[in-house]
Amino acid sequence: MYSMRAIGYVRSPYKEARDVPRGLGAQHEAEGVLELLPEFTEGLADIEGFSHLYVLWLFDRSQGCELTANPPSDNRSHGVFATRSPLRPNPIGLTTVELLRREGVRLHVRGIDMLDSTPILDIKPYLSSIAPEKLRRGWLAEAEARAK
Amino acid sequence: MYSMRAIGYVRSPYKEARDVPRGLGAQHEAEGVLELLPEFTEGLADIEGFSHLYVLWLFDRSQGCELTANPPSDNRSHGVFATRSPLRPNPIGLTTVELLRREGVRLHVRGIDMLDSTPILDIKPYLSSIAPEKLRRGWLAEAEARAK
Repeated sequence: MYSMRAIGYVRSPYKEARDVPRGLGAQHEAEGVLELLPEFTEGLADIEGFSHLYVLWLFDRSQGCELTANPPSDNRSHGVFATRSPLRPNPIGLTTVELLRREGVRLHVRGIDMLDSTPILDIKPYLSSIAPEKLRRGWLAEAEARAK
Repeated sequence: MYSMRAIGYVRSPYKEARDVPRGLGAQHEAEGVLELLPEFTEGLADIEGFSHLYVLWLFDRSQGCELTANPPSDNRSHGVFATRSPLRPNPIGLTTVELLRREGVRLHVRGIDMLDSTPILDIKPYLSSIAPEKLRRGWLAEAEARAK
């Protein structure tokens, strides 16, 4: 077992899970703030140079783990590791956000899909993308095709 | 504090940190295996449909946290959250790998940069990319330009 601690908290317009856009075609354009604890200020040096960041965070309002998930984007179930379900063995969420600006320990970002007060575990720079033509998106691409 | 557990372990050709390609232009083409514990087999259903996966893992051979990092790709220091340094407040690593094939609980992948026996915390599908023309890569792009 390994212990993790919050390095800060998300300030989000979403107060409850039902507020977050879900399902096929859901857009994540919401703006919010990643507010780090003051002790981590120094760790943010030079982060302004990156347009996009990975945010690792905790699904703190989910309980338990289910190995089969029923994502809102499909009417079929899939293995939890093939989905973004919160009911994971380790309840870590991963979101890519666009960094709009920094104010001290507050990172203003676009693309929030976390709830307000979500604990942040880590922030990393987004360094490179997989070329779209090399990407296969499994059941999600199939669900999108069926929905057309 | 939040407790995390290993869901499996990385089988990697890299036995020590010095074996892993580092610095500007380092290629991560090594093949390896993500070997999950048998109890998580069901969670892998349908993962074969995805070409790329995010792997969240533990820097289990690093100790401590330094808010300023000296990445091998630059001769200048940067805030830890603007780097992939292992000495993070929460020692979680994030690697994008290409899924080559699945054999039961063993996922054969390309793009390994973890050490052998690294604990795996989570696996998620890679669903979409940021378009390269929208990406800014801060100090890393500057270091690359200086190296030319």
